[in-house]
Amino acid sequence: MSTIVKTGIVGASGYSGTELVRILLRHPNAKLECVTSRSLAGKKLSDEMPHLRHIADDMSFTKSEPEELAKIKDIDVWFLALPHGVSAEYAKAFIAAGKKVIDISADFRLGSLELYKQYYGSEHPAPELLELGKYIIPELFDVKGVSLVACAGCYPTSILLPLIPLLRKKIVAGNNVVINSYSAVSGAGKKVDLNYLYCERNESAKGYGFVNHRHLSEIEEQLSDAAGKEIIVQFNPHLCPMNRGISTTITLPAGDSTLEEVYACWNEMYAGKPFVKILESGNYPDTAYVANTNRCDISCRYDARTKNFIISSVIDNLVKGASGQAVQIMNLIYNFDERAGLL
Amino acid sequence: MSTIVKTGIVGASGYSGTELVRILLRHPNAKLECVTSRSLAGKKLSDEMPHLRHIADDMSFTKSEPEELAKIKDIDVWFLALPHGVSAEYAKAFIAAGKKVIDISADFRLGSLELYKQYYGSEHPAPELLELGKYIIPELFDVKGVSLVACAGCYPTSILLPLIPLLRKKIVAGNNVVINSYSAVSGAGKKVDLNYLYCERNESAKGYGFVNHRHLSEIEEQLSDAAGKEIIVQFNPHLCPMNRGISTTITLPAGDSTLEEVYACWNEMYAGKPFVKILESGNYPDTAYVANTNRCDISCRYDARTKNFIISSVIDNLVKGASGQAVQIMNLIYNFDERAGLL
Amino acid sequence: MSTIVKTGIVGASGYSGTELVRILLRHPNAKLECVTSRSLAGKKLSDEMPHLRHIADDMSFTKSEPEELAKIKDIDVWFLALPHGVSAEYAKAFIAAGKKVIDISADFRLGSLELYKQYYGSEHPAPELLELGKYIIPELFDVKGVSLVACAGCYPTSILLPLIPLLRKKIVAGNNVVINSYSAVSGAGKKVDLNYLYCERNESAKGYGFVNHRHLSEIEEQLSDAAGKEIIVQFNPHLCPMNRGISTTITLPAGDSTLEEVYACWNEMYAGKPFVKILESGNYPDTAYVANTNRCDISCRYDARTKNFIISSVIDNLVKGASGQAVQIMNLIYNFDERAGLL
Amino acid sequence: MSTIVKTGIVGASGYSGTELVRILLRHPNAKLECVTSRSLAGKKLSDEMPHLRHIADDMSFTKSEPEELAKIKDIDVWFLALPHGVSAEYAKAFIAAGKKVIDISADFRLGSLELYKQYYGSEHPAPELLELGKYIIPELFDVKGVSLVACAGCYPTSILLPLIPLLRKKIVAGNNVVINSYSAVSGAGKKVDLNYLYCERNESAKGYGFVNHRHLSEIEEQLSDAAGKEIIVQFNPHLCPMNRGISTTITLPAGDSTLEEVYACWNEMYAGKPFVKILESGNYPDTAYVANTNRCDISCRYDARTKNFIISSVIDNLVKGASGQAVQIMNLIYNFDERAGLL
Repeated sequence: MSTIVKTGIVGASGYSGTELVRILLRHPNAKLECVTSRSLAGKKLSDEMPHLRHIADDMSFTKSEPEELAKIKDIDVWFLALPHGVSAEYAKAFIAAGKKVIDISADFRLGSLELYKQYYGSEHPAPELLELGKYIIPELFDVKGVSLVACAGCYPTSILLPLIPLLRKKIVAGNNVVINSYSAVSGAGKKVDLNYLYCERNESAKGYGFVNHRHLSEIEEQLSDAAGKEIIVQFNPHLCPMNRGISTTITLPAGDSTLEEVYACWNEMYAGKPFVKILESGNYPDTAYVANTNRCDISCRYDARTKNFIISSVIDNLVKGASGQAVQIMNLIYNFDERAGLL
Repeated sequence: MSTIVKTGIVGASGYSGTELVRILLRHPNAKLECVTSRSLAGKKLSDEMPHLRHIADDMSFTKSEPEELAKIKDIDVWFLALPHGVSAEYAKAFIAAGKKVIDISADFRLGSLELYKQYYGSEHPAPELLELGKYIIPELFDVKGVSLVACAGCYPTSILLPLIPLLRKKIVAGNNVVINSYSAVSGAGKKVDLNYLYCERNESAKGYGFVNHRHLSEIEEQLSDAAGKEIIVQFNPHLCPMNRGISTTITLPAGDSTLEEVYACWNEMYAGKPFVKILESGNYPDTAYVANTNRCDISCRYDARTKNFIISSVIDNLVKGASGQAVQIMNLIYNFDERAGLL
Repeated sequence: MSTIVKTGIVGASGYSGTELVRILLRHPNAKLECVTSRSLAGKKLSDEMPHLRHIADDMSFTKSEPEELAKIKDIDVWFLALPHGVSAEYAKAFIAAGKKVIDISADFRLGSLELYKQYYGSEHPAPELLELGKYIIPELFDVKGVSLVACAGCYPTSILLPLIPLLRKKIVAGNNVVINSYSAVSGAGKKVDLNYLYCERNESAKGYGFVNHRHLSEIEEQLSDAAGKEIIVQFNPHLCPMNRGISTTITLPAGDSTLEEVYACWNEMYAGKPFVKILESGNYPDTAYVANTNRCDISCRYDARTKNFIISSVIDNLVKGASGQAVQIMNLIYNFDERAGLL
Repeated sequence: MSTIVKTGIVGASGYSGTELVRILLRHPNAKLECVTSRSLAGKKLSDEMPHLRHIADDMSFTKSEPEELAKIKDIDVWFLALPHGVSAEYAKAFIAAGKKVIDISADFRLGSLELYKQYYGSEHPAPELLELGKYIIPELFDVKGVSLVACAGCYPTSILLPLIPLLRKKIVAGNNVVINSYSAVSGAGKKVDLNYLYCERNESAKGYGFVNHRHLSEIEEQLSDAAGKEIIVQFNPHLCPMNRGISTTITLPAGDSTLEEVYACWNEMYAGKPFVKILESGNYPDTAYVANTNRCDISCRYDARTKNFIISSVIDNLVKGASGQAVQIMNLIYNFDERAGLL
């Protein structure tokens, strides 16, 4: 395998796509060969992504027909930053052409076709690929031999990183889990909608999507896998006025476990992992401290009165919650330094 | 009783104090006779509260010795916007002089001396007044005959308004209550501290004070009173980058109750109450919509899978969470229109 | 004339319209009889303007055909909050029906038909009304007998209040005037456009519309009127991440005049004017201090090295820059307290 | 010369210092050997700079006595991020020990001792080093042989990059220059002061320091040098609610020059310069697009009516305006890729 992997991005016009372009253009072991966008085809990246004027001078967006793209010999791995339902058609073409696919969208995150239909409102667009697709948070799941990566969603990344180790080790039982997450506005994507206007979101903190947010499906599927039994959680997402970041607070019964066991479990699980930092109990993770990084900071408190653990975690939703994590996965697949392009 | 009540404010230099000055200067039935501040004595309000230049032209801050202030004949009701421990000494002097006292601070919020010591770290400064002091959220508690008002704290107002009716009517049992609140930065007061600098709080969402926030004590005492049994809750306060507002999300088991019962209870409790608005299920309260108002918006969802209610509420922490509510209480005590000065 | 004036608003769905509804619903001498919106006809104000839930309970938006509205007998004065070109047709109908019209939009701000065509890109929609329409900033122009009011624009209000008195008194000559204004995002209106998304405007300060911003036309027309000669200025508008406010900085040659003469002129001009506050030299006006008020704060410095005056002014663009000023004008027309509804 | 330069930072606890640590820890040709702070000596960087937890794990702050530091053999270049007046004593010790010094503070920016005294209020602390110190913006001044670098201030960088080429080539004369700059709050440093609290600066746009801001002295000295005659300008700095960025707008007479000449001059001057991007006329530079980059974006409009040029420029005040530029200078001194560590 060469030390330079050739990459392409399909659907790069949104916030995650821009972040992915930024990371790949600076990556020591990757070359960004192709960036597509239906709406921006023919236009220059430096005009459409003015944040990147100093690193994106010569590139233009290209058209994005799956079959045509799949024929490009020079590309080893395709990143998909597309709406759900759309990414599947690209994945099919790329997999058929023997490429690796790292999908930031939701099409291959769920193992269950019924769950997909229930949460996404339509039949799964490529059920034949479900088996191939692997849900990946790189600290928790092995990337070896994976050719179709379903990157975890932003909220799920902030939730599963602290919870899965505790469930796997039976330190927590998984009942009565209450999750409250506050997301930056970029979590909604670059959506031209009255609700996302500056004056609507500034000075606004509010819930949305209680009970049936799409990410709930992957959160519960993964927690259930980790626990070896069905886990049902309360997931309350919110918006607050920031550009980047998710702050998650999880309350759950400690059972007979202690704070020391939580920390021992995390310390063992995340020893040597460069992008998970465990803060001591009482030190609160802060979205400001992980902005523009691929890091997840976590900590836990124990309440002796309620016998609950209260776990806090933060990530940058566009980096560890999307594009940074996608590149971290690529690094691991290609045996690069896990941190390449991400510091 | 005259239709104009004469008022004074002790300790007006903070954010709640400024808000109180603003409301009282515009109040049709109140005259603000005296505004004190140790640090600003002798200075003009219009210089120190430049937001109020158009309404505060002639007033100056005066000194604030309790005994001296208590002698001022012309004042019927004193508002206290002071640190805990300090307001008690003023309350003593004013009560002794036959004045009414409406205290925005924490000194008379708790019925238990031990709880006060545990949460505030010192002996209660005026235990002899505990009996006289009444904890008031005006939609929930009767103000009749009260001469020493302990206004509810900001977080507790957002929590107790939706919960107390449900506990009183036994619609919820009160076990396993998980409360997550996000507060604007003004909730910390006008504190000159590195943590409250613009660049530290902008783009920052984070927890703080889990397990032992001072407001937890009054929340639990009031919930227990309402339920007729001891209630212990998980209270997770957070900060997010806004000037004003608290967004609270409460998760709790529905037991055998239905969403309809929740709404029927609220509709009955808050019928005719101008400052509590009940939003239909699925309509999320938003801090932006209550900014600069004395309103609390609440709504509830039911999750059939977890059998939980998820309750949302929002207030402006400086108005309904502090100064507006204090004036609303004054209006009720003096039989003014409850909304006087607050629209 | 009754002490209650009956009012209607055409086109109330934007930010200025909401602000106007808010002010009129609380106004002691006005009754809001009718609020129209093409897009929201039939819907309730309390649903569409959730900021106003506590004061707008029963009203609904009505349809907005000019001829139909003109027939409503019960309305004395119509406020127009419409796009340019559209407000003229309503003005025609209302004037014909003998109503007073206070127009927040741009259709009657200019005295010159050519200027209108040059800056607004089309022929003036009602040239026959130009004579009747009067450009009003109430501290500077007499409202007596005016039946068609063209309220000044937001930028112009912040610029003309400090400059016109100095030009009228020949304290400054009006040559080489350089104006830089920074506006909150609400200045762009409630426009569903990529450029006004939260994540685009947050952390963004930038110029726009240099050389040919539409407000330039009314600024120069009014300055020329005040000076009695043609005045041409440099007007550089900018956006910065705020909900409300305009901060204007004007640099211009002092000629032989002194700072004392500037202040004497302002003090004389604005004596007894409740909504203009003159700050001493070196005290900088701040948008935060005028937010949600109808105030304009101004101050001036003199630079002995450059022999320039540097004038600063701030307003809330939605209040003094639009709806508050419109109501202030109504108050003066009807001989109400100038401050009615605006404190 | 080795391909790895050994670096130290004195006074790293502020916002610029943190940014400098971040850049140097990721720099391919630099090793950060020592970070000092009087207040944080002995503490770990990862605790005190939690933004950097993933890259700063093992380092601690050390003490900062000049004589002791100067003895550290292993350090080739010292960066000073200190208050004015303080950096000079370190510069003296380091220069005496044969080290290179790159000073982000103001002590060596001015060539004139009188100007220093006038603007900084005290005698210059090391007049004997004035000759050695060179004011550097790397696109404009040669770094060859320089051992004591005075990095340009943040405002001056945004102003001099567009103006100096035009003055050197006599495209503009330099009379009647009016500069308005809007800075993010981090420009004030990590100062624990009421004025910089979140709730004071949020929603606030305002001027400050008109007529006598300290940066005015270096702006005028450099402009005068470039023009070969004394240049006096109007410099109006402002604050607006952002974490990072300066947006500068410069109005000046075009004389007989054309927009094409401005662009030709810039294009020639900045050809091949990776960190200056020239935007076409009518495309407005935006602070959001340069945040977290070392880039300066500039553009110009011509107003045929006023015969003025209006120049816009933006930088990230902490990167191109401070620490990024300092590292860019180090790169050039050591013949590294100018962009090393800065993409």
